[in-house]
Formats: sequence, structure tokens, C-alpha cells
Amino acid sequence: MPTLLILASNADEYTRLIESAHLPNLNITSEPANCDIVLGEPKLIRDALPLLSSVKWIQAIYAGVESLTDPVLRRDYILTNARGVFGELMSEYVFGYLLFHEKKILERIRAQESKEWQRPESGVLRGKTIGLLGVGSIGAHLASTAKYFGMSVRGFTRESESCSDVDIYYHDPHILKFVQGLDYLVCVLPRTQDTNTIVNASLLNALPAHAIFINVGRGNAVDESALVHALTEGKIAAAVLDVYAEEPLPKDHPFWTTPNLFMTFHTSAISYPENITKLFVENYRLYIEGKPLKYQVDFERGY
Amino acid sequence: MPTLLILASNADEYTRLIESAHLPNLNITSEPANCDIVLGEPKLIRDALPLLSSVKWIQAIYAGVESLTDPVLRRDYILTNARGVFGELMSEYVFGYLLFHEKKILERIRAQESKEWQRPESGVLRGKTIGLLGVGSIGAHLASTAKYFGMSVRGFTRESESCSDVDIYYHDPHILKFVQGLDYLVCVLPRTQDTNTIVNASLLNALPAHAIFINVGRGNAVDESALVHALTEGKIAAAVLDVYAEEPLPKDHPFWTTPNLFMTFHTSAISYPENITKLFVENYRLYIEGKPLKYQVDFERGY
Repeated sequence: MPTLLILASNADEYTRLIESAHLPNLNITSEPANCDIVLGEPKLIRDALPLLSSVKWIQAIYAGVESLTDPVLRRDYILTNARGVFGELMSEYVFGYLLFHEKKILERIRAQESKEWQRPESGVLRGKTIGLLGVGSIGAHLASTAKYFGMSVRGFTRESESCSDVDIYYHDPHILKFVQGLDYLVCVLPRTQDTNTIVNASLLNALPAHAIFINVGRGNAVDESALVHALTEGKIAAAVLDVYAEEPLPKDHPFWTTPNLFMTFHTSAISYPENITKLFVENYRLYIEGKPLKYQVDFERGY
Repeated sequence: MPTLLILASNADEYTRLIESAHLPNLNITSEPANCDIVLGEPKLIRDALPLLSSVKWIQAIYAGVESLTDPVLRRDYILTNARGVFGELMSEYVFGYLLFHEKKILERIRAQESKEWQRPESGVLRGKTIGLLGVGSIGAHLASTAKYFGMSVRGFTRESESCSDVDIYYHDPHILKFVQGLDYLVCVLPRTQDTNTIVNASLLNALPAHAIFINVGRGNAVDESALVHALTEGKIAAAVLDVYAEEPLPKDHPFWTTPNLFMTFHTSAISYPENITKLFVENYRLYIEGKPLKYQVDFERGY
């Protein structure tokens, strides 16, 4: 009988949702040694990994699974992550911030505070060019939204070119060509060895001065002091960051007070248990039929 | 030979664009008495109307033409307005402000200022219900964008039900039923007798307390003191206004300091001469062939 352990801060909610799905033969346990399936947060699962002696399948409730793909850890199980559920939320976040800048919402609020009837022209998304660093399921959704708003879309990937909403793909070593002339650069990269400080000084210098950079991937992708420098020197117009090399961001980090840097707090796309439970149910049915699971992570690639 | 008078603050730009379109037989004049065609701003044209003794067709460069549909004025010519060019801009504005609220962008900025790592949940557009007061070409574009973001769409119109992105239509006298349970109410109404203070105290009271009201139509649609009261008393969560009964808004108007009221300054969708010239060129070709013009205004309805 398949036995599931749930390791999440909101485990009660997951238990309730999974029980109400009435999955065939599924038994929910609280004993790590007994389970063959684990559903939960990668960091909590990493800590429990030595106890999970008979685990065969781990379903992460997040997209980022770097806590589990660390080469020092065992890899004798199937790891699946959450995909296809964050694209819409990420689109709302990214295009919310792009429109916030183009529509000059903060400037209008300041004008209202000083009772000034101001009519500077707003910018528009239509006709602009967005560059996506990473085009997985989240990047593909961002590309679709960019197309809806009449934009051009460039994608930078290791090798895949599968999203039809991307107008032109770039790969290593053409990253500087990829960013040249971009209006917006959005990083959706997972944390892997290959993505460390990919957004560095030379890349930031290659962007136009009016460009906006958004990071909704992982903090390791950004050379943080290079970004502070680029914003302070006006090399780019603004940055919106949701992720950082260290989270929560230390109180003495320069990001808090860097000009034209807009911070959010790893909140761009949260995991809704309803959505994640749907993925789990879908995969559980495949699991008991002995079929290949969806959303499998390649431990070597790290995503 | 058709003779065109251009009455706009940026007449030079229109002259340049229209000349470079090389329209057959078109002569551009600066003499009001000589012209049979006028292109321009409704208010400027209204002032010149007594001089336009031989005018047959007036193409307005704006959507709103209330300056010309006033019953005291002559109506012995064909009036066309600008349509189909503002929908995209209005969508960027409306959804920019909705996302600004849902993503709590201002709260995040304040959290950053006080160096607080805050993780309150953002709201989402997906699953929300938007109500459109008026579903012409702009309303239809807003409906399409709402559908892109996974929302339900209600429309309130006099009688038309032509936009397939509207899930359910309401008509007079069911306006209170229309607003019941809405998350967002967006007014896109033109200024007519029928639209005066349609957004009044009873309508605002019928909205949920978490609702956001946006007016990108005309200021006459809003009972302004009722709106101040609704915001001050927390009957609705926020309002975003681009248009006002009097523009520019007088310095002593309560709107400047009403809580949760976000003002812009009749800037939500400006007329780009390139776009308007395309409409004019299209209509000019119909005009010289004696065919019916597009975008004709019904003087009685006022739009």
C-alpha cells in the first residue's frame, strides 16, 4: 500500500486536500521510515533525507529544488517538482511591475501629493522587447503574456527552443548579443552551477540605460555588487528583485537602499496547496500504474 | 478637390503625416471657410464651427466628442471619432493599476524603506470578476485582457451584447444587480445625458468593501461627493480616476486628499498622431469614393 509522508509547514491543509481526493490505496503516515512517497518543501525534505529509508518518489511543492539536487545527497529516488502552476502568478507579478514603471504610477502618486495636474506621457508595453533568461514553463507563460501585449520576445536557454511565443533564441556564448537593445530583462533561471552570477557587470553594461531588470528566478544568478553599481551609476533604469543570494536579506545589505531598486520578498509566486495537490494527484495515479511521472527533475542539470 | 483643415495643438505633426500619406487630390488649407473636411480636437472644432460653412465631414482625433454632440450645435455634417486605437492603451492602464493593487506594490516599497522582510500574500487577478460600465471598442479590449488573465467579465450596456468576451450582460434597470459581488468596476462610458452620475451612492454601496473602482470614461459618470464618502467610509477599497467633472481638477477639490484614491490626469490613453492618421487615411479613401465612413457618431446617442 503506497504510504505518503507530508513535510510542509502547512501539512494539515495538504492532508485535508489529499484525503478529500480519495486516492486509491493511499495511506498517509507521519513516520519517515515507513513512507515510499514524500510531498513537501525541499529544505524540510533534505533534513529528513537520511531517515527516508524506503522513499521511491519525492514531489516538491516548489519549482526550485536546489536543496535536493546538491551532489552530496543521495539520488536513489524519483524527484518531481511543481511546474505549470507558477506561470500565471509570475506573469501577474512581472507585468504588474513593468506596467507600474511604464505608467509612472509612483510619479503620479507624488504629483497627487503635491496637487499637481501633471501630464507626462506614459510608456507602453506594445512594441517593446523582453528578454527571458530561462524559458521553462514559467518563461513560456511570460512569453505568452508579452505576446498578448504586443511585444517582441527573446529567449536565452541552454539548448531548448520549444516555446513558439519566443521570437528568437540565443544560447551560450551569445548572451551579450541576447541582451543588446532589450527594454526588459527577466531572469527565471533555477539555481544551478551554470547560473551563478550570470547577470554580471558585463551583461548589465550591455543593457540599454532605459532597461528594467527583473529577477524572479534565484538570487545566485545575480552578481549583487555589480547590480548595485549598475543602478547607482544609472547603467540601467530600474531593477525588481524577488530573490536574493541570502534570504531573508540581511539588514545591512546595500539593496535595501539602492536607487531604483524595488524589492519584494520571495513572494512573486507562492504555492497554493490546491494547485500543488492537483499535480500530486495526477502523478500519484501514474505512480500506482507504474507509469513515468510528470515534472521529473534531472539531478545533473538541477531542474 | 477635397480640402482639409487641421485643428489640433499638434497640427504640424498631423500635416506632415498626412502629406507623407500622398492621399489622392487632397488639399490642405488653413482657411475654415474653404474646407469640406476637418480633422482635429473636438473643443477647437466646436469653437470654429460657425466658420466652417462648407464642412461635410469632421474626423475627431479623440474618442470623446461631447463638445460636438451638444444639442445646441448644428449637425449638418458627418462626425466620426477615433475608435479601435485606445483599447490597448486602456488595457495597459487598467490592468497596470489592478496589478499594482493586487501585488501590493506600494506596501512592498514601504516595507523596503523600513527594511522589513515582509511576506503578506499578494492577491491575484485569476478568478476575479470585473464589471465593465460600457462595452464599446475600449470595453471590448478590456474584456479580452480580463479573459487573458482568467477573469469573469460582466458588461453593462444600453442594449448591445456584441462582445463575446463578456460572460454576462446587464441593462437598465439592473445596474445594482450588475455591480453585486464585483471585485473591480471599470467605467468606460462616454459623456451623455444618460451617463450623468451613474456611479452614485447606491451603486457604490452595492459594491463589496474590497472592490476597486476605475474611471477611464468621462468624469460626468461619477457622483464625486458620493465617491469621496464611499472611500472615506471604507465602502470600497480604492478608486483610480483618470477623468473628472472639471479638468484640470481644481486645487481645492477633495479628491486630491481622499484616502485610497489614486489620481491620474486624463493620461490613460493619449492620441498618437500615427494611429489617428491611419484612421483618417482609411476614412478619406471611403469619402472620395462616396462610401459610408467608419466610426460615425450618432448625434442623438452622443457616441
